[in-house]
Amino acid sequence: MDVPKASDVLARELRERILSGELAVGVALPAERELVKQTQMSRATVREALRILEVQNLIRVRAGRAGGAFVQRPTTKSMANSVSMLIRGQRIKLADLLQTREALEPFCAELAARNRTDDDLAVLDAANDAIADPDADLPAFLQANLDWHVGVAAAGHNELLIGFMTALSHAIYAGTENPTFVDENVRAITQRAHRSITTAIRNRDAEAAGRRMGRHVHSYAKAALAMDKRGAIRVED
Amino acid sequence: MDVPKASDVLARELRERILSGELAVGVALPAERELVKQTQMSRATVREALRILEVQNLIRVRAGRAGGAFVQRPTTKSMANSVSMLIRGQRIKLADLLQTREALEPFCAELAARNRTDDDLAVLDAANDAIADPDADLPAFLQANLDWHVGVAAAGHNELLIGFMTALSHAIYAGTENPTFVDENVRAITQRAHRSITTAIRNRDAEAAGRRMGRHVHSYAKAALAMDKRGAIRVED
Repeated sequence: MDVPKASDVLARELRERILSGELAVGVALPAERELVKQTQMSRATVREALRILEVQNLIRVRAGRAGGAFVQRPTTKSMANSVSMLIRGQRIKLADLLQTREALEPFCAELAARNRTDDDLAVLDAANDAIADPDADLPAFLQANLDWHVGVAAAGHNELLIGFMTALSHAIYAGTENPTFVDENVRAITQRAHRSITTAIRNRDAEAAGRRMGRHVHSYAKAALAMDKRGAIRVED
Repeated sequence: MDVPKASDVLARELRERILSGELAVGVALPAERELVKQTQMSRATVREALRILEVQNLIRVRAGRAGGAFVQRPTTKSMANSVSMLIRGQRIKLADLLQTREALEPFCAELAARNRTDDDLAVLDAANDAIADPDADLPAFLQANLDWHVGVAAAGHNELLIGFMTALSHAIYAGTENPTFVDENVRAITQRAHRSITTAIRNRDAEAAGRRMGRHVHSYAKAALAMDKRGAIRVED
């Protein structure tokens, strides 16, 4: 029989109060000593419960005189972390990642064309400039590429899609960090495709943005998987 | 300055060894005492590190004689949990959830038509029967509805999409648990749409499955949002 641990029970209760908004962002939880008194649990249990919430990014613990455990909201970043853990731990194939991106990203581009602000466009333009930089090495190119893709999701202003795309993009970055794949040709094609999608987003042309993004991620996926297969065959030689 | 905690450092190291596969699933970590010796860290620190990994579902701790900390893989469920925390904690709007579903689910239906097994079809058929049950109350109807939607994702056999759809479906279930919305008419329409999409999946007709699913989730989203708005206006009266 699984008996729930006291620290899990306390962590769950506090978590509910944070997620429901009863404990607002920035508010300090009662001091450890106070929680011990309120809950009649041991100091070690209370400490463990707080540690759990800290790992889940629901509180931030600051030391010192003005210290304490302060409530914070679950972030896109912590969700992206758990998606990344799933991808790595389950050995999710590059093909599945690329397929998921094909599902999400044309839709993100359409949303971006509808909802983008001037600030969003500035992010995309900066990423396009970095991608076009002939002196950029592979990590710099991939980072600029990632910035652009996450930037398109951000311009759509749907928090959940931004979270999914952030997680996915990091995993795809890691899966295609390969100088024989990302050659001059791939770079030139990427640069052109990004510029033309950015133009559609600038012009608020959702249909063109979605269609061009669909074509771009599909052809990238095909090329990446062909390379992946070649890589696999080469290993067997 | 942020000094990393010893328990975080140890947890990170063990996490890397689990995610990289160096520590395989089912393997027992060294005993607490042994980890204390190896790492020269305090017993409390080692215990805290193990607790962190347990919260992240990377180990399962069993008590007793054959007990210990056993390595397990990150699960879809733990990712779905963190997505749910983000949705609740960030107050992500129903509109954004439904929009994300519109991005993902037609694609899932296409994949299902391509990759479904007979077992997958049995799950969909069982959910369809439960949806058609005239005696089902609202929770039973919503559960069957959720089972069908997650079943379509499962039939696509892309682990990442399954994780995203599981998380989303739970949140949408919670957001539309409303008897004035889910009336006889909505139930009848849902039943018909699910049957016709299931038929397309059975016939391996990816194009029809995707198209019908797109129509279904779009009309559901429109109706749910119209209801949401009426609710909001009523509150302001």
